[in-house]
Amino acid sequence: MTLSSVHNPAEQAITTGPISGSSKIYVEVPGAPGLRVPMRRVHLTNGEHLDLYDTSGPYTDTSATIDIEQGLPRARDSWTKPAPIDGASTQLAWARAGIITDEMRFTAARESVSPELVRDEVARGRAVICANHKHPEIEPMIIGKAFSVKINGNIGNSAVTSSIGEEVEKMVWATRWGADTIMDLSTGKNIHETREWILRSSPVPVGTVPIYQALEKVKGDPTKLNWEIYRETIIEQCEQGVDYMTVHAGVLLRYIPLTAKRVTGIVSRGGSIMAAWCLAHHQESFLYTHFRELCEIFREYDVTFSLGDGLRPGSIADANDDAQFAELRTLGELTTIAKSHGVQVMIEGPGHVPMHKIVENVRLEEELCEEAPFYTLGPLATDIAPAYDHITSAIGAAIIAKAGTAMLCYVTPKEHPGLPNRDDVKQGVIAYKIAAHSADLAKGHPRAQERDDALSRARFEFRWTDQFNLSLDPDPAREYHDETLPAEPAKTAHFCSMCGPKFCSMRISADVREYAERNGMNTQEDIDRVLAQGMAEKSAEFADHGNQVYLPLTTN
Amino acid sequence: MTLSSVHNPAEQAITTGPISGSSKIYVEVPGAPGLRVPMRRVHLTNGEHLDLYDTSGPYTDTSATIDIEQGLPRARDSWTKPAPIDGASTQLAWARAGIITDEMRFTAARESVSPELVRDEVARGRAVICANHKHPEIEPMIIGKAFSVKINGNIGNSAVTSSIGEEVEKMVWATRWGADTIMDLSTGKNIHETREWILRSSPVPVGTVPIYQALEKVKGDPTKLNWEIYRETIIEQCEQGVDYMTVHAGVLLRYIPLTAKRVTGIVSRGGSIMAAWCLAHHQESFLYTHFRELCEIFREYDVTFSLGDGLRPGSIADANDDAQFAELRTLGELTTIAKSHGVQVMIEGPGHVPMHKIVENVRLEEELCEEAPFYTLGPLATDIAPAYDHITSAIGAAIIAKAGTAMLCYVTPKEHPGLPNRDDVKQGVIAYKIAAHSADLAKGHPRAQERDDALSRARFEFRWTDQFNLSLDPDPAREYHDETLPAEPAKTAHFCSMCGPKFCSMRISADVREYAERNGMNTQEDIDRVLAQGMAEKSAEFADHGNQVYLPLTTN
Repeated sequence: MTLSSVHNPAEQAITTGPISGSSKIYVEVPGAPGLRVPMRRVHLTNGEHLDLYDTSGPYTDTSATIDIEQGLPRARDSWTKPAPIDGASTQLAWARAGIITDEMRFTAARESVSPELVRDEVARGRAVICANHKHPEIEPMIIGKAFSVKINGNIGNSAVTSSIGEEVEKMVWATRWGADTIMDLSTGKNIHETREWILRSSPVPVGTVPIYQALEKVKGDPTKLNWEIYRETIIEQCEQGVDYMTVHAGVLLRYIPLTAKRVTGIVSRGGSIMAAWCLAHHQESFLYTHFRELCEIFREYDVTFSLGDGLRPGSIADANDDAQFAELRTLGELTTIAKSHGVQVMIEGPGHVPMHKIVENVRLEEELCEEAPFYTLGPLATDIAPAYDHITSAIGAAIIAKAGTAMLCYVTPKEHPGLPNRDDVKQGVIAYKIAAHSADLAKGHPRAQERDDALSRARFEFRWTDQFNLSLDPDPAREYHDETLPAEPAKTAHFCSMCGPKFCSMRISADVREYAERNGMNTQEDIDRVLAQGMAEKSAEFADHGNQVYLPLTTN
Repeated sequence: MTLSSVHNPAEQAITTGPISGSSKIYVEVPGAPGLRVPMRRVHLTNGEHLDLYDTSGPYTDTSATIDIEQGLPRARDSWTKPAPIDGASTQLAWARAGIITDEMRFTAARESVSPELVRDEVARGRAVICANHKHPEIEPMIIGKAFSVKINGNIGNSAVTSSIGEEVEKMVWATRWGADTIMDLSTGKNIHETREWILRSSPVPVGTVPIYQALEKVKGDPTKLNWEIYRETIIEQCEQGVDYMTVHAGVLLRYIPLTAKRVTGIVSRGGSIMAAWCLAHHQESFLYTHFRELCEIFREYDVTFSLGDGLRPGSIADANDDAQFAELRTLGELTTIAKSHGVQVMIEGPGHVPMHKIVENVRLEEELCEEAPFYTLGPLATDIAPAYDHITSAIGAAIIAKAGTAMLCYVTPKEHPGLPNRDDVKQGVIAYKIAAHSADLAKGHPRAQERDDALSRARFEFRWTDQFNLSLDPDPAREYHDETLPAEPAKTAHFCSMCGPKFCSMRISADVREYAERNGMNTQEDIDRVLAQGMAEKSAEFADHGNQVYLPLTTN
């Protein structure tokens, strides 16, 4: 790789080392000797441990040597690559041919499911494995409704702020806290170089919106864009190893006027660029007219389409309107074309949607787009909380993920007012891990509740350190506790910081458990029998209390 | 009132003055001369304004004189109080008798609905107006599923931290940002005095959990509690002016062993106190056996029951279990009894519930408790994010409010690890305003979307200052924007801080609007006609571009 010394991103401090209380372990992949799935093992004070899905790559492995100038090891270079099927070297083509690739075995082990399930879901187009052949550094992962809900973190510099080194650290930081993929949305200078650093350093798939770079090539004037410049940009990015690309090929000329009466018009940058182009040329979008050629390029690298929703609603008022759903219908047509070329497809979704209109988005996407993985931005359940849109959108994200969305694009607190810094990235990732995990619980994902149960057991047993270490973010949990009860012994104290030493519901609950066990109260019958006995013995005492209103006991 | 000079709470700095960009206005109440509903008027730079529901009381009125030692004016003392009905001086009794009280007119004007709707909902027990006759300082509000969703903020010191003055400021601060009621959950020393300061200073109804103070009276030993001590405590609090009280009268002896096998046992403090008492005495709870006597006290003051869910689940694993729903059934019986005494009732709800089990809580509550207003704590949609439980619970809160919950009890970032400070209070309130407002939108509350539309219009028209001032919290929105684009002119710039000056989707959208208007594209037919014309004219140009794949246009 060619790295400019002007920016010197390698001098940026990169966060390494494990999250508190945990260490990296590797699990052998059945049927694929030499392949190992990374996991994060949380060590508990009672001698037990819990192994968690881990997106953080070698950065959290104390035995790994991190050299940003060298990039991560090219592990996937040595994996088995099957021969092309009908010219397509893609997970989709292989899955349809019944082949289980190393990537499928790896992701299956990572998800604790069978490789056959992964293959079948990929073959149906209900799941995608975003893994460009030219991006051998990644640890493959799978995106689909049958698997755990994934989250994407957007990073990237803009014309107004930030450096390459900062963006690399944001990527490492985002994956540390759980981002399953990263999108590099850089729009300023040095787009190519920024992307190169991110790709070579990223343990997770990287997505882009190539129209941003194409626009830079025409000095920011959308009307000067054309297919040749776009094609050149796409090939450049495919060669670098980008794993999925947002293509706003569904913004058709005739849909554009449907946005004119909207409260917030077109809010997607890609969508508005293509709209500007279509209007200026009074011509159909070159992304749409050259779509099959795009498919032929993508299938060579196994780049996944993320069909962009250029007409997504930017406000509650515009949700689920004609423009949005007209485009979605076109995305469905494009899905069929892409899949006929053996190319994997995701569909991007809104945006801003009030809660009662969210589920319809999933239903319609599945109907129109052959259940291709839905990849949504939030949605924000209200417009009125700029600076808190990680929360407004986590509400929408949890609901849409429960309904079947496969991957959630995070929103940071800076979403509307500014650009996210490192801390905003973390706030966005944590809010979206909450949304994704809540959906996994609601969908009955087989291993999701393990972590809730382990943490709640630790909480109930006053194992404070375990409670912190099992958290999505142990640091503030520990810090908040220490603010209230600073002394070290407090972390082993048998009372909560909320109630103080003599007045603790958890302690009283432990007494209940002991009482039930002592009296052999295992069933409702046991309970009734023991209580009836007790009631009779205590009846005299009861009367003394002068109960004015002793309501009859009811069964339940 | 007797105020100790030892603590000197009046020296605490209290936040006054309006939220940025707004001022206090008062709206006359139809049919009640002299009564005026406070609202917050947001002044927009385009000369328009938006009037918002306002919970902040005189503290945000620049013309008001604030003297914490004097307390707020006793405005309601001069309101008309109808004669008791069958011994009950309550909003419920009056509503049933067809009387529209001043409180009903006031809340109706505040909600922009008819006083008849308020009266009818109160008469049915589907809504409550928490307004103790001894608390004349408050601006009455209504809690019920037919009205906007309300939020409660918990404050109160504990055995381990904080002063009275800080708690008064937390109350002012919470109502500033939108708390509709406040609960004083103090458990440490000076419970009576803390409550007195809060009551005399609060513009919103105040709730308590009297068992906490009763427990202090017996030096923290639950087994020493009895009806007499509890009764004395209740009367003391009724006399002070507490508007609603949490009473855990549904924790029956035979339900307690149902919690023994739970992951987190009994997590409600009140529930665990009563469980400890029942087990120690092997006797039914005195709250249950004396419930009718409680009703007789409450109806004299018009104190509202908040029937506590002492057996609510404290973890995902325990949600919707036998213990929880057994208690809920008993709360239903108690609701009937309370209402037969003319006493208003709310029902408290969970807690920790995974998303797919949330709606069942509302359905069952409505079925068992005659649709009494449901008042839920979150619920948290997962256990794994201590320090972020304002977010985990805002997800659950939004979903349960959409399903019909009338009031949401906030959760702060400190919920599990520690005690909330002033900033945590704000974080909790804002997260819950988001949840409540999202639910109002989803329920189609007639005025909810006004604010979203006004803010989104400001966003689309680059009226940055208006966008900030229409936000739930203008300060960080402005601050984040200024971080990225510090100069003052940036707030009137016609581009977003995300995209930079030359590359802005909002600007392009404005072009689309202009294009559609110029071409008279008002209907889909217009659009098709204009485009068909354009397409024909441009066909030669089209051919030059060498479209390999020109997919047929579809109708939609």
